[in-house]
Amino acid sequence: MPQPDQSLAGVVRLQRAMLQHAPVGAGIDHDLQGVVLTSVSQTGKLVRGRLLQAAAATLAVDEETADALAVATEYFHLASLLLDDLPCMDDALTRRGQPCAHHLHGEAATILAALAFINRAHALIGFALAPWPGRSRCQVHAALDACLGVAGLVGGQARDLGFARVAPTPRAVAMIALAKTSPLLWLALLLPAVAGGASAREIAHLKALAVYWGLAFQALDDLRDLLATSVEAGKTTGRDRTLARPNLGLVLGVPATRQRLHRLITQAEHRIGRLVGLRSGWTCLHLFHQEFAQAAAPAASPASEAAA
Amino acid sequence: MPQPDQSLAGVVRLQRAMLQHAPVGAGIDHDLQGVVLTSVSQTGKLVRGRLLQAAAATLAVDEETADALAVATEYFHLASLLLDDLPCMDDALTRRGQPCAHHLHGEAATILAALAFINRAHALIGFALAPWPGRSRCQVHAALDACLGVAGLVGGQARDLGFARVAPTPRAVAMIALAKTSPLLWLALLLPAVAGGASAREIAHLKALAVYWGLAFQALDDLRDLLATSVEAGKTTGRDRTLARPNLGLVLGVPATRQRLHRLITQAEHRIGRLVGLRSGWTCLHLFHQEFAQAAAPAASPASEAAA
Repeated sequence: MPQPDQSLAGVVRLQRAMLQHAPVGAGIDHDLQGVVLTSVSQTGKLVRGRLLQAAAATLAVDEETADALAVATEYFHLASLLLDDLPCMDDALTRRGQPCAHHLHGEAATILAALAFINRAHALIGFALAPWPGRSRCQVHAALDACLGVAGLVGGQARDLGFARVAPTPRAVAMIALAKTSPLLWLALLLPAVAGGASAREIAHLKALAVYWGLAFQALDDLRDLLATSVEAGKTTGRDRTLARPNLGLVLGVPATRQRLHRLITQAEHRIGRLVGLRSGWTCLHLFHQEFAQAAAPAASPASEAAA
Repeated sequence: MPQPDQSLAGVVRLQRAMLQHAPVGAGIDHDLQGVVLTSVSQTGKLVRGRLLQAAAATLAVDEETADALAVATEYFHLASLLLDDLPCMDDALTRRGQPCAHHLHGEAATILAALAFINRAHALIGFALAPWPGRSRCQVHAALDACLGVAGLVGGQARDLGFARVAPTPRAVAMIALAKTSPLLWLALLLPAVAGGASAREIAHLKALAVYWGLAFQALDDLRDLLATSVEAGKTTGRDRTLARPNLGLVLGVPATRQRLHRLITQAEHRIGRLVGLRSGWTCLHLFHQEFAQAAAPAASPASEAAA
């Protein structure tokens, strides 16, 4: 199980690797460089990258491979944030407490930076995969296609934006959350699992964990959008109602959404328990689960309604 | 050397494969699907895909692999066209004689469709590469990174948009053209060259050919922007002057640009001659060169100035 200092060393390695692999180069346009460098410097909590490193350590994957895959996963995440914030999408003002990239460097540079991150992420994964057997590489390519494409992030974002045109049911909201939030958590677990030769049973539990965590992340995000101020959340809140976007709190009500959040957290805990039964190293997942459950606590408790 | 009927069969296969692999699926957002299906139905001349098929046939690469790589290359091209036309980039009204995708389906769906094409293209290449040796796969991943990222399409487009901020020299214009136009021609030649085990000398000549053709394509596009009507060109013309974009005709003058275009065409012919000396099958490249030289003829001759 990774110790706190090991985990801190991992974050430092990850931040350095994100800078080192950043898609910049001689003669690069000033605004494009601005978006890329700001994005890799003002990182968030790097949940996906740290999760990938922890899973890789559990499965004895070498650090260089783990770091490259972690950077790629974080680059996919950065790209999705840059694009989601655009005026034609969520039209956000701030992200991580700072003005959004398109307000500082323009929409074109923001879109191109997102593409540069996606392109570099594919290259990093391609190189990391090079020594793996063909079957493992195909498994990863299929997962990337499913997670990032129309069945995953791209399709989820499109349905999120077109939500006003469909019946606003809890199921429709959950399906969009599943496409938008679970895929990168799933990649963060699958990539090291394939690299480290995890068993089919472990991979099935990891997939379920990514689903429960993803749905819980999104339920929490929905509650925050309804209940938190923009300053507390570090990004523009109160948008879902205004823009007719899917929000579990709006279709289920806040109390029922809290119940669902608690249930998802319990289901995730159960899967971690099953994983630990198969391989003791998976106790590392408890750290992430606690971190997440603690972050969820304010929105998950009725006291937060006072702020709404 | 491919016969005309063989080449037609290749186009039919390519169009079918572009539809078959199109990034659509159950529950897909209406606008996203609209952009994807319109893009794969209203294809242009498929120069890159056909070129890839011809090079693959020369090198005895199997048709299934060739078609998958050709589709991927065309998907990268489609994505770049969708994004280049956006209001924050070239703000174009029409493409291939039809209204641009963002005018029909919105900017968000257009951006997401571009990402869906890019994502699917990476998956197609990943699967096609699966049986290749690690060294070949790494060569392809490095080329994809160079061609599509900040050293290629993404960086070229950013410098194109930021051109008003730099000194408008012929060299600056050529460097942007090189980053924007050669990379996909180069991938169309490199991917089958690696798959078919072309020699290092062949690969070096193919790279030079992609450079000459790319610069010639762009010089022709620049002349068309200055000299053709939007109806003739099938896309909005006269934009480079208005938007302060790089255009060789604007920095060199139209006669000198025509001379350069002729010189580039001659240099490309010379490289094809060298390639045919190494492997007779490369005569297939003459067909593409003739097609290109014929397309260039109107803008390359002073008679077209009457239309300006």
